[in-house]
Amino acid sequence: MKKGILMVISGFSGAGKGTLVKRLLAEHEDYVLSVSMTTRKPREGERDGVDYFFTDRETFEKTIAEGGLIEYASYVGNYYGTPKAYVEDQLSKGNNVILEIEIQGARNIKKIYPDSLLLFVTPPSAAELERRLKGRGTETDDVIAGRLARAAEESLGIDDYDYIVVNDDLDTCVETVDALVEAARSQPIRMKELIGQLREELEAYRK
Amino acid sequence: MKKGILMVISGFSGAGKGTLVKRLLAEHEDYVLSVSMTTRKPREGERDGVDYFFTDRETFEKTIAEGGLIEYASYVGNYYGTPKAYVEDQLSKGNNVILEIEIQGARNIKKIYPDSLLLFVTPPSAAELERRLKGRGTETDDVIAGRLARAAEESLGIDDYDYIVVNDDLDTCVETVDALVEAARSQPIRMKELIGQLREELEAYRK
Repeated sequence: MKKGILMVISGFSGAGKGTLVKRLLAEHEDYVLSVSMTTRKPREGERDGVDYFFTDRETFEKTIAEGGLIEYASYVGNYYGTPKAYVEDQLSKGNNVILEIEIQGARNIKKIYPDSLLLFVTPPSAAELERRLKGRGTETDDVIAGRLARAAEESLGIDDYDYIVVNDDLDTCVETVDALVEAARSQPIRMKELIGQLREELEAYRK
Repeated sequence: MKKGILMVISGFSGAGKGTLVKRLLAEHEDYVLSVSMTTRKPREGERDGVDYFFTDRETFEKTIAEGGLIEYASYVGNYYGTPKAYVEDQLSKGNNVILEIEIQGARNIKKIYPDSLLLFVTPPSAAELERRLKGRGTETDDVIAGRLARAAEESLGIDDYDYIVVNDDLDTCVETVDALVEAARSQPIRMKELIGQLREELEAYRK
């Protein structure tokens, strides 16, 4: 059984990350989404166990202490973390696990799982990002300004990602991610078994 | 004009590297092959300017002194090097340049061009490598033993490559390389222009 790939998907708010993830999950039977645990209050429409596992501070800190989280971060006064058991279980079953997390979490994941695949989703331009955020028509100007200010911060960390996925057209974007996952399968870090076998077999020929 | 990608293709002797490179060149108008310069004597059938630029020690060392080589290495008493002008010219024209070189040269290239793409071609197993080498029917047992001994050495350096390309079926192998080149286009190191532009545009929104 080939181990699955741990895929981190980050991106500017408004980049179309959520839609991309939904499409990836719908099109691939072997993709699953990791649900984060958080102490932040649910927003309208968010469901426990689907969008997040909503919990309180005490339970979150107990989970940290028990080693039950792969990584966690504190953001605007709330904890966000990735439950370990589900991720490891799915990877060992050969499923690719998607983590939709922020840059700080992405960096932590890469430290613990050097063979994780970090993808950053962006619209083709900042103007397009602003257009999309305003087009939603659901947020105040202040909230939009906040998201753009945060995007400005996030843009400084893009280099830490393995790949940048420009979300201009969604179909193309899905195809690109498919190609990136396919390419990742050819990285030496994911071919340790083959490399080990080749070395062992070739050892016999060494002079 | 998008800059081309500098592709280094290495692999065990007998892995089918040469056939792969021929197919890549035949199928892509924007792929060109960089011809190495060497002081080794031409083998039967090798043509000057096609397989190598054959030259003498003095001329080679003069070219080094003039900074005319991207990298060079000495191997079994002979110099091998990559002429600089041709490579840089083709890359700036948007062509992908293939360098078919050994691991020592590959490492040197990566130091000078961090955005180069290092591919290592291998058959699926050592047994298959041996079968292919013997199947050629053109080499003595001693030569084949030497190639296998060298493969054993080379297998230790595989981790330095960006990707390992298993050449089991040639068509699949060509498709894989195409996917890897496509994926490489999404690496932050090749998207500096977009990243710079995003940062500049987003700067205006910073609080």
